[in-house]
Amino acid sequence: LEVFAREDFAMSRLLYSVSVSLDGFVAGANQSEANPLGVGGELLHAWMRELSAWRRDALGTDEGFTNASTDVYEDGEDNVGAIIMGRNMFGGGPGPWGSEPWRGWWGDDPPFHLPVFVLTHYSRQTQVCEGETTFAFITEGPDRALELARCAASGRDVAISGGASVAKQFMERGLIDEMTLHLVPVLLGEGVSLFERRIVPEQRWIQSRVVEAPGVTHLTYRFSG
Amino acid sequence: LEVFAREDFAMSRLLYSVSVSLDGFVAGANQSEANPLGVGGELLHAWMRELSAWRRDALGTDEGFTNASTDVYEDGEDNVGAIIMGRNMFGGGPGPWGSEPWRGWWGDDPPFHLPVFVLTHYSRQTQVCEGETTFAFITEGPDRALELARCAASGRDVAISGGASVAKQFMERGLIDEMTLHLVPVLLGEGVSLFERRIVPEQRWIQSRVVEAPGVTHLTYRFSG
Repeated sequence: LEVFAREDFAMSRLLYSVSVSLDGFVAGANQSEANPLGVGGELLHAWMRELSAWRRDALGTDEGFTNASTDVYEDGEDNVGAIIMGRNMFGGGPGPWGSEPWRGWWGDDPPFHLPVFVLTHYSRQTQVCEGETTFAFITEGPDRALELARCAASGRDVAISGGASVAKQFMERGLIDEMTLHLVPVLLGEGVSLFERRIVPEQRWIQSRVVEAPGVTHLTYRFSG
Repeated sequence: LEVFAREDFAMSRLLYSVSVSLDGFVAGANQSEANPLGVGGELLHAWMRELSAWRRDALGTDEGFTNASTDVYEDGEDNVGAIIMGRNMFGGGPGPWGSEPWRGWWGDDPPFHLPVFVLTHYSRQTQVCEGETTFAFITEGPDRALELARCAASGRDVAISGGASVAKQFMERGLIDEMTLHLVPVLLGEGVSLFERRIVPEQRWIQSRVVEAPGVTHLTYRFSG
């Protein structure tokens, strides 16, 4: 850690962005390997899947739309130098990794192209993939994951890419600097909540950007304490 | 009911607007008669209390601000002809009304100036106040309250003025035509949820208006089924 100046760390923000239903769910009920977003969960990402920009990245095609969401989608990862994700987001089910451990949902060349830090209770060797994606498995908790991610990001931002339980751990610690909610007008009724009914300090955020787009509003907030 | 034409009913929408925290609370924890909004609940209404328009109505003073929230505040009640509220919103605590029943928080001249239908388990004579506010007490449930409110509104809209449990009963029935969330960047952690974790049909809404204003975003949705 000593090779990075303090200023690098001061500039590096912790970001979290997530698609969420009006009733606060980031995934539907009954998540499974076949249906990782749960019942109705795909509705939360429809705004993104329609974008040419997303289709180019994910499907290699140019079909799709360009609208007010495009800038939000493209800005999102502009200055990100490392990623933190939870074990569920990485995948492979709970428990020890086993002898032929799960290698993620994304094949040999995952779309991250960055150092990724996976929070888990089970240690495992760092996995180096094509395209400069590496998965490091962190068993020492969120603070340590953030420290290592900041180090790897070399002054750029760190993004939490999910899931909700990881994001909540950072939020409860007051560590998230900027949060973007892609608020989608659907009620799911049950599923994975972004915000559980927990005691948090009475946190205030500063509304820093609102973008109205077809079928979604992108709301960005900076942490103010 | 026979004196109103069908078209009147078809034009009359059921509206609900409410200030809500990022984590979905419309009031904080530990509500009491002294602190009806609960811990931190006053933060949800700060955007409104700063407006000259609100201060004129509520306090009779012109001090305050005019900003993007002003139109939202003033539009809100433009075409409303009747109001539905819950027993908690009307006040006086739970249970039978007693011999000197509670007359509401608002004194002899309540600010509604409209027929108000209070959902309660305990019947009571209609209370006629100054300034054309009447409180009718409905024990036959939300469908009956809506029928009577629509009748009284004579083709104008009906507004649910709270609280959350009444709004949820109408929402679960798919009866709310338009919902405006005044989304305030604060996390309360606990309190009264706008949306409980309940099974609702997978409802979709159409985002019809987004207004960015200081310290709040006003999000209006129309019910689409």
